[in-house]
Amino acid sequence: MKAVAVYPRKQGPVHLREVKKPIPTNGEVIIRALEVGVCGTDREIVNGLYGDAPYGSDFLILGHESLGIAESDGVDVKKGDMVVATVRRPCPEHCLNCTRGEIDMCLTGNYREKGIKGLHGFMTEYYTEDPKYLVRVPHDLRHVAILLEPLSVVEKVIEQIFKIQKRLAWEPRTALVLGAGPIGLLSTFVLRDIGIATYTFARSPSGRLNDRLLEESGAHYLSATDTPLSYIPSKVGQIDLIVEATGSASLPFEAIGVLGINGIIALTGIAGQGRILEIDTSCINLKIVLENKLVFGSVNANKSHFETGVRRLKSIEERWPGVLRNMITRRVPIQRSQEALEKGDSDMKVVIEV
Amino acid sequence: MKAVAVYPRKQGPVHLREVKKPIPTNGEVIIRALEVGVCGTDREIVNGLYGDAPYGSDFLILGHESLGIAESDGVDVKKGDMVVATVRRPCPEHCLNCTRGEIDMCLTGNYREKGIKGLHGFMTEYYTEDPKYLVRVPHDLRHVAILLEPLSVVEKVIEQIFKIQKRLAWEPRTALVLGAGPIGLLSTFVLRDIGIATYTFARSPSGRLNDRLLEESGAHYLSATDTPLSYIPSKVGQIDLIVEATGSASLPFEAIGVLGINGIIALTGIAGQGRILEIDTSCINLKIVLENKLVFGSVNANKSHFETGVRRLKSIEERWPGVLRNMITRRVPIQRSQEALEKGDSDMKVVIEV
Repeated sequence: MKAVAVYPRKQGPVHLREVKKPIPTNGEVIIRALEVGVCGTDREIVNGLYGDAPYGSDFLILGHESLGIAESDGVDVKKGDMVVATVRRPCPEHCLNCTRGEIDMCLTGNYREKGIKGLHGFMTEYYTEDPKYLVRVPHDLRHVAILLEPLSVVEKVIEQIFKIQKRLAWEPRTALVLGAGPIGLLSTFVLRDIGIATYTFARSPSGRLNDRLLEESGAHYLSATDTPLSYIPSKVGQIDLIVEATGSASLPFEAIGVLGINGIIALTGIAGQGRILEIDTSCINLKIVLENKLVFGSVNANKSHFETGVRRLKSIEERWPGVLRNMITRRVPIQRSQEALEKGDSDMKVVIEV
Repeated sequence: MKAVAVYPRKQGPVHLREVKKPIPTNGEVIIRALEVGVCGTDREIVNGLYGDAPYGSDFLILGHESLGIAESDGVDVKKGDMVVATVRRPCPEHCLNCTRGEIDMCLTGNYREKGIKGLHGFMTEYYTEDPKYLVRVPHDLRHVAILLEPLSVVEKVIEQIFKIQKRLAWEPRTALVLGAGPIGLLSTFVLRDIGIATYTFARSPSGRLNDRLLEESGAHYLSATDTPLSYIPSKVGQIDLIVEATGSASLPFEAIGVLGINGIIALTGIAGQGRILEIDTSCINLKIVLENKLVFGSVNANKSHFETGVRRLKSIEERWPGVLRNMITRRVPIQRSQEALEKGDSDMKVVIEV
């Protein structure tokens, strides 16, 4: 069967290779792939910046945003179920958090990740999986379920924000999302779904697809071409929370300045390494300390966030039909995977069809 | 009666002035001052960098670290009680947090502060106070109770750390305190009191007073002259939490690099304004995001933190007798207040005796 692979830590392109169809063992189920989503991490791996092959292999099968059909039965999974697999697998040390299934909070850093770090991914016709890492998705979500993995990352961020802010009396009314890519857009939809006035700030001028989609959810698009970041509070009032989803090196620091008193910033993006930035420190300690502000980073997600995500997909589909579906701007057959991994100017979410 | 005052936003020195002895109204009690502690904020006010006089006054009576004897009865306070007053008073808008008595989390920023912002302070012979802002302290803590206000700031930090970290499964074993001034030292004692292995890092070479005091509590002193910050994890293992108490502009950013996975940094110090810092951003987003790290700022404290602080003073006194008392390196009579406000090389906590 076909699989899309790279030689990790070497610059791409990807190659299509023939691999043996896997045989399930130890209670695993076998899954027929439907689609695999492409994200920035995949592009970094193709560019040789990231990624590790499984032990004993010189190649890595890509893909961590999965959607497939179970072709055998397993615990809590039946043949014919539509399933999404989580990404991380526990560290060999069985740390406190991995033991509890909160592998996204692994304490050793020795977790493995499907399609990223030490384990083959889902860009292949069939894969096997321990059912405890599978989340069932109703068939009526077939056309949006490929968004479940990036949505799980957002669900973790939002859950963390509310867990953290139990540190004080907090009634958030207004959120700012930085970036209108897939994570920015999904963050906007989740915040709107829980009833928070949401402003989404990005570089593009108004009138593009992402901006139209987020306004359908009742959010407001703020283009950097019209509104500098520092002007936003005077326009929208006190900002209670910020989700940073651009990966900019400087934006998180500017964001501290626009965040309201007692506010919280979630960082989800990663800036390029080794870039030196000049920062006016008066924006940092001073504002953080005197206004009880908080900045945290969030990565990956655990199974509970995928499960919350399934309910969220349903809710968003019902409230704003089409916004999720329209985020998928390109579907590419597996034979032409390299095209999927090259980001087009108008691409939002690109999906490989297996 | 005598009071120590400044003309805010003008460079000092302080002056001693005659003011009328206040008359309690509306259920207030009158308090005879015993001692007033001096801290960095007082020095900033004397240097004209900070501070606001009460409405209609051109001068501000200094002092927010108080200790006094009630000379009249009030709700929950009896004549003869030893009392410490909290520092902040609610904003006129009665925001959510001020209404709940959590004035340290005031949402408008229009809170007032005794001896700092819009209200006269405690460097005077008598003052009146609404008893709801008074915390009673047992007389056997007479010689250390002046430390209650700075200790309340630390109690808030530690409480916030544990509240925030309920976001995940977290079993902290090792803490790093940056700075060995009063806040660094009190943070060290509190962390030791709750049973955490604590390392305190500061610039001074080993063998000075602060270093000897903290080692009495079982903490370990790490001098920057022997151990660069970045070497500390290789020496002490995973660091679960960091309390930054130097006010350095660059140290918080370096601290992110030495903090362990899922760790938390509390910032308590404020760097000088307008200093431009060059930062390698690979230490920031990348480490914060990929390792689920968190940075927060904390300022001031509410009454509950003073109350926790009273119990803590007792516990520290019992476990490590003398460490608190020995933090007070100088006692200066009110007539010579200006001397108290000039920081000597070997000063830790300087106290004005009224």
